[in-house]
Amino acid sequence: MKISVTVTLKKDVLDPQGKVVKQTLKNLGYENIEDVRQGKFFEIELNENDQVKAKKIIEEISKKLLTNTVIEDYSINYK
Amino acid sequence: MKISVTVTLKKDVLDPQGKVVKQTLKNLGYENIEDVRQGKFFEIELNENDQVKAKKIIEEISKKLLTNTVIEDYSINYK
Repeated sequence: MKISVTVTLKKDVLDPQGKVVKQTLKNLGYENIEDVRQGKFFEIELNENDQVKAKKIIEEISKKLLTNTVIEDYSINYK
Repeated sequence: MKISVTVTLKKDVLDPQGKVVKQTLKNLGYENIEDVRQGKFFEIELNENDQVKAKKIIEEISKKLLTNTVIEDYSINYK
């Protein structure tokens, strides 16, 4: 089972990486870029066919390891 | 218009970050993790209402700046 987790900075947290990408795009002539936020993406292959169990594991992993829940949010995408 | 771009390493490219996450999860007791691949995620806010133009811009940006097309793939998600 393939599951992807996207981790993004919370809305009010400053995102210096995103700011650099935005500024670079402006310098390249893309004037209509309003904002860029950068995050992390994980694709996890799980050896578990029970969807409920898989969901529980991925939720746990996301909170424990993949996300710093003080400043980041995560969203899980089951394929 | 909000558009997200996910950049992942190509299938045959070694992913040391993903390997570390996988090993850490194994050490934490998650035995049924088969594989972890890590990538980047960009959320772009574009001041462009014409969907065709927006698509063109995002494709360009993805190829020029966000992705190293030698070793990475990208996928675009229009919301």
